[in-house]
Amino acid sequence: MRSLFKAAALVLAAGVGATAVNAAESLQDVMKRRGLSQQDLMAAAKTYVPTGKRDEFLAFSSGGQSGQVIVYGIPSMRILKYIGVFTPEPWQGYGFDEESKKVLAQGRIDGMDITWGDTHHPAFSETNGEADGQFLFINDKANPRIAVIDLRDFETKQIVVNPIFKSEHGGAFVTPNTDYIFEAAQYATPLENKKFYPLEDFNEKYRGGMTYWKFDRKAGKIDPKKSFSIELPPYSQDLSDAGKGPSDGWSFTNSFCSERYVGGIEKGRPPYEAGCSAKDTDYLHVINWKKAAELVAAGKAKKINGADVLTIDTAVKEGILFLIPEPKSPHGVDVTPDGTKIVVSGKLDTHVSVYSFDKIMKAIKAKKFESKDPYGIPVISMQDTLHTQVQLGLGPLHTQYDSKKCIAYTSLYVDSQVAKWDFCEGKVLDKISIHYNIGHLVTMEGDTTKPAGKYLVALNKLSIDRFNPVGPLHPQNHQLIDISNDKMQLLYDMPLPLGEPHYVIAIDAKKLKPGVRYKVGTDTRTDQRHPGAVRAGEERIERNGNKVTVYGTLIRSHITPETIEVEVGDEVTINLTNLERAQDETHGFTVSTYNVHASVEPGKTASVKFKAFKEGVYPYYCTEFCSALHLEMQGYLLVKPKGWKATKKELAKGTYTEAEYQAIVKRVADTQAVIDSVVGYITSTNYKDFPDVVNLVADATDQLNKIPDAKSKYEAAAAKKDWEQASLWAEQVWQYQVKAADIGLRAKTYLEQNGAKVIK
Amino acid sequence: MRSLFKAAALVLAAGVGATAVNAAESLQDVMKRRGLSQQDLMAAAKTYVPTGKRDEFLAFSSGGQSGQVIVYGIPSMRILKYIGVFTPEPWQGYGFDEESKKVLAQGRIDGMDITWGDTHHPAFSETNGEADGQFLFINDKANPRIAVIDLRDFETKQIVVNPIFKSEHGGAFVTPNTDYIFEAAQYATPLENKKFYPLEDFNEKYRGGMTYWKFDRKAGKIDPKKSFSIELPPYSQDLSDAGKGPSDGWSFTNSFCSERYVGGIEKGRPPYEAGCSAKDTDYLHVINWKKAAELVAAGKAKKINGADVLTIDTAVKEGILFLIPEPKSPHGVDVTPDGTKIVVSGKLDTHVSVYSFDKIMKAIKAKKFESKDPYGIPVISMQDTLHTQVQLGLGPLHTQYDSKKCIAYTSLYVDSQVAKWDFCEGKVLDKISIHYNIGHLVTMEGDTTKPAGKYLVALNKLSIDRFNPVGPLHPQNHQLIDISNDKMQLLYDMPLPLGEPHYVIAIDAKKLKPGVRYKVGTDTRTDQRHPGAVRAGEERIERNGNKVTVYGTLIRSHITPETIEVEVGDEVTINLTNLERAQDETHGFTVSTYNVHASVEPGKTASVKFKAFKEGVYPYYCTEFCSALHLEMQGYLLVKPKGWKATKKELAKGTYTEAEYQAIVKRVADTQAVIDSVVGYITSTNYKDFPDVVNLVADATDQLNKIPDAKSKYEAAAAKKDWEQASLWAEQVWQYQVKAADIGLRAKTYLEQNGAKVIK
Repeated sequence: MRSLFKAAALVLAAGVGATAVNAAESLQDVMKRRGLSQQDLMAAAKTYVPTGKRDEFLAFSSGGQSGQVIVYGIPSMRILKYIGVFTPEPWQGYGFDEESKKVLAQGRIDGMDITWGDTHHPAFSETNGEADGQFLFINDKANPRIAVIDLRDFETKQIVVNPIFKSEHGGAFVTPNTDYIFEAAQYATPLENKKFYPLEDFNEKYRGGMTYWKFDRKAGKIDPKKSFSIELPPYSQDLSDAGKGPSDGWSFTNSFCSERYVGGIEKGRPPYEAGCSAKDTDYLHVINWKKAAELVAAGKAKKINGADVLTIDTAVKEGILFLIPEPKSPHGVDVTPDGTKIVVSGKLDTHVSVYSFDKIMKAIKAKKFESKDPYGIPVISMQDTLHTQVQLGLGPLHTQYDSKKCIAYTSLYVDSQVAKWDFCEGKVLDKISIHYNIGHLVTMEGDTTKPAGKYLVALNKLSIDRFNPVGPLHPQNHQLIDISNDKMQLLYDMPLPLGEPHYVIAIDAKKLKPGVRYKVGTDTRTDQRHPGAVRAGEERIERNGNKVTVYGTLIRSHITPETIEVEVGDEVTINLTNLERAQDETHGFTVSTYNVHASVEPGKTASVKFKAFKEGVYPYYCTEFCSALHLEMQGYLLVKPKGWKATKKELAKGTYTEAEYQAIVKRVADTQAVIDSVVGYITSTNYKDFPDVVNLVADATDQLNKIPDAKSKYEAAAAKKDWEQASLWAEQVWQYQVKAADIGLRAKTYLEQNGAKVIK
Repeated sequence: MRSLFKAAALVLAAGVGATAVNAAESLQDVMKRRGLSQQDLMAAAKTYVPTGKRDEFLAFSSGGQSGQVIVYGIPSMRILKYIGVFTPEPWQGYGFDEESKKVLAQGRIDGMDITWGDTHHPAFSETNGEADGQFLFINDKANPRIAVIDLRDFETKQIVVNPIFKSEHGGAFVTPNTDYIFEAAQYATPLENKKFYPLEDFNEKYRGGMTYWKFDRKAGKIDPKKSFSIELPPYSQDLSDAGKGPSDGWSFTNSFCSERYVGGIEKGRPPYEAGCSAKDTDYLHVINWKKAAELVAAGKAKKINGADVLTIDTAVKEGILFLIPEPKSPHGVDVTPDGTKIVVSGKLDTHVSVYSFDKIMKAIKAKKFESKDPYGIPVISMQDTLHTQVQLGLGPLHTQYDSKKCIAYTSLYVDSQVAKWDFCEGKVLDKISIHYNIGHLVTMEGDTTKPAGKYLVALNKLSIDRFNPVGPLHPQNHQLIDISNDKMQLLYDMPLPLGEPHYVIAIDAKKLKPGVRYKVGTDTRTDQRHPGAVRAGEERIERNGNKVTVYGTLIRSHITPETIEVEVGDEVTINLTNLERAQDETHGFTVSTYNVHASVEPGKTASVKFKAFKEGVYPYYCTEFCSALHLEMQGYLLVKPKGWKATKKELAKGTYTEAEYQAIVKRVADTQAVIDSVVGYITSTNYKDFPDVVNLVADATDQLNKIPDAKSKYEAAAAKKDWEQASLWAEQVWQYQVKAADIGLRAKTYLEQNGAKVIK
């Protein structure tokens, strides 16, 4: 058998592997063959990201009913990650390892596991009204909850359950310095938990509301004890936005079905859709949240289900809650970047209504109200507060802003268009058709104080004929639009393969600085040292009664320990620490048919727990293809009958000869020569100028450093003529070499392709 | 308030909305700004798919530990769908509705729910060795199972559990007419279920094996009763392939760790990776499955765990099982398109070994064996069976074929390259670097009898520096390579956002003909009429003791019924039929905090079931943004205390005046004029030549047909001066109009953009 690394030397010498451009077909040939227009080619050039280059913006999309968050790059529109948030997801081990199970357990409601979520509106943490790239928040409409994702590692760290709502659509939105994250109730219900009132008591006993969650940035967590809510009438509160700049301290919340209609099509009554859209206006809720927080601090809140709630009466009495009519069945409410105006879209009106914050304040100061609503809340008139109304088209929903002054973009659901317009002058500038039926839209950092312009993404609810058919359940279609010029240009159709995103937010990629590894032994859900973490050489199995605890490690390509022996009925906990430092060297772990899985990234400690309820032999293995010997990264869980006693004491011996041992030793020596030549090349260059290569070199060194110990073992065994042990430890040395060579060759290629210079 | 459809008329007349190409920046400007080379532009032109155009091939990828299947287009590399297979997935309702729960329940093992899977190798059903686009099969390595996905609707229909294995890596592979789907065991265990033997008994009591699942194409299901297995030695059986053409009737299966090493690093023994790779060769298993099936039919199988198993002894005695040495720790085994050769890659060897089926048959006929393995299986020598060996590089793994004769592509894991080579002549033709550490690779229909050439996808295990960082857990990187010319050209880097795909298969998109709707009332998991299906007007709620069954329907934008009243402790089943015919008009359904969700595509009937364990008011709603009035597609589950008696009998009345009613009626009339003009335009064209438009027209007509009934209701109410009912039913008429107009405008745009002609 020819040796691996003799060939390696040949391959390296020959330099095979360089890529050449195929000149057989010209660009014009390709365009003709593929039916591309000049405009298509331009769109391709504006969106294509070559290998190794990065996207300019990262988008964070709600995953809708998937209960996840979707991360994609702009302009390439390539999806980079689905983050498990409300739904267990085994690839990430989310909901499968004990640490993430604890996060999901925070989201239990009335003692019940909720294994999904209906995510709607993601929000970045902000500093001075700008997206700061530190945290992401997202809500669950069906089971009113908010989750906190840390953008240092893109993991979900916390879930909080709303104490008084049964659904919430209008979350998450943050105040300009992320003091509060807020969410609005959607469908009115009694605020008391598990309390029934009939629909006949709807007006009296059902309520909406707003919850303001206090965020502790240092802890990276919401603090429920410092959070509060405001009781609101049973209008279906909907989307919200926080004031900024001059309007900082205020929040604005839409509503629909202020008709307070309760349906009943099965009894011959008109359905909700008719009864909830019959009137020409609903109510924009204007709330002074800063003063509300002070009132709560001053003890003016009432406890409902253990949470602080300001009643409508208190809010009215204290002058922190006002209503303004808004046309008709509104959807989006979006504060302008300078905080002076609030844009509301009435989905059954053809206009957007631009309210002036200054005018609102003037009316409040002058106590100029046109009426009170049935709950005694002062109503300010539209004419006293409107800056302008602009006729855009059919079904306006949401508005986002441009880096250019006064420029806004609004989605038109029924028209299937995006309108570009001027909210200062009140005029339409451009329209573009999308495919089809747009819900939200997003511009880059377009809901912050400093929109970045450049791109817009249309979040279309129907794709219909845009993609290859994949059955009755279609993907959604996010369309990328170039907004850098006067006319909008459609660039790209992106199918969404899982979930129905509602809202997306996008951030300059340079603002994100996620890590690639953890400090060794980290419980990544708490960011604390994991009590089950061990270093190499400290692995052990402990038994305490029927509780067996394994303290194990993972490194290419073995799991320590390789055998776990337990008895039927034992409760088994397996802690695993990934000892790798190399970027992207994740290991996975599962035990056959015991329904456990963990994803263990470099430095992470994860644990799985199960009851060994059945006798037998259950292989465990690494589920990530982590090295050439990945399949051999295996072990056995042996579940013995209670009281089983061994009779045979010896494992079967392999048959190994001195000649075989010598052949392996020879192979090791040949391979070392190749490694030396690669190392020689790398160290002859300015490789230290390339951080990625420095990491690769550190990682290769990790592997090579393991060799002396294995070498002393094979030499000792050879001295005792134990050719099996001698051969296998020599083979292990070669395995370390193969891994080091793998990394070394990658580093060498990187240096060659990135213009490293030979400096010595 | 200005009316919606007055504006519509204006917008239509003005023709706003046309897109213009921005001429401000030239192609050269864009290339310079974005740092694109000519080669990059060529790659962009080769991969960009403009809006509304389709991909040429569809790829079906294993989702690795996600337990799902990933569908993406080639060359755009856009992911079109994640299909739930072994893991519950709420967007699809998979594992949340009762119908799909039954599919997942088929995958229970030893009474335990397994809520994930480690999917590895998808396979298309084949007809005469060609992918036929009818079914997809995929395995679960961790919990040895095979799933059947119907490509008419991209839904998982069946899961079967392997009766004798505890893990299986080498599946799914199909015979040329899909008579059998087979899978190979991976880590040897006792075949008897839940039976412990110590590792000291490894050689005697642990076994590998092959299972051949009989597929009933008409039923679209695996028939476990007609399936069988073959016991094999405790070598870790690995990948497999079916013979085709001359080799049809035979199967070929790799193995590693034929050393039968059992690890023990925690006891100071060399780890598995050393002990399992110490010898220079392992064994290729050559099995006559056709004769095996006959032997089983003739009663020669033994029952193990209730399944038919041919023992090693029987297989040897009957002459259906042979071994051939193969170098070293092999991974892929791939039969050439013409079925004459078998290519094996030894991942620790630098060569691929090309075996001749003809030579294997000659040796078997001549009974020319070099030895027997420890289990008495005849071993044929390498020299008697090799066609050639070709030195490719470091870590060869898998091989795929081109449409061009004798051309093969092999992945090189350690070298991070793809080698193009000639398996007839035995020479290397080209190499290309990938990023990084490639596992499988795929060419279009490249493992069938008729490879389609054109593209190759490299399934890289590490992406490291290729994409914007998203935390320690990186996406995988699938790289698209153009293989249509002599030199391979890298076209595209595609991140995989969820799961670690192992193998991908790709099919000419034209071969797939999935449906876009179901026959109304279909249980899509059984393809039978759902017992809970009802037509419009037949909705009802039935009580039987404490069991409450709802027979409901979904259509834009209402759920019938809109109120469900139960008592605490009732068992509630809600059946929902989607009455839509329109493509892509899916509705979702959830009940607040009861952890139920359903995705109900057009025609589907789905049911959710839960115990109403808590008193209170729980909104339910449609979770898909299905129309402008989507948020109003809502209802209430009222869970009353036991024995609760109503006191108040009247719902609160809304305040509606005759003037309001008249305004709505006026709006309805204005809107009808707009609809008439749109309908007039559509019917003046050759719209019947556009099937998509015909569907849209049918769907708009569905909405308009609902108007007479609602109209008679508003007129009757107005006659009685019941202005609330009159207004709401008139409003409902307008809602139907809005939906019809939405569709009509889309149809009009489609016709204008697709060159429809005015014919009358």
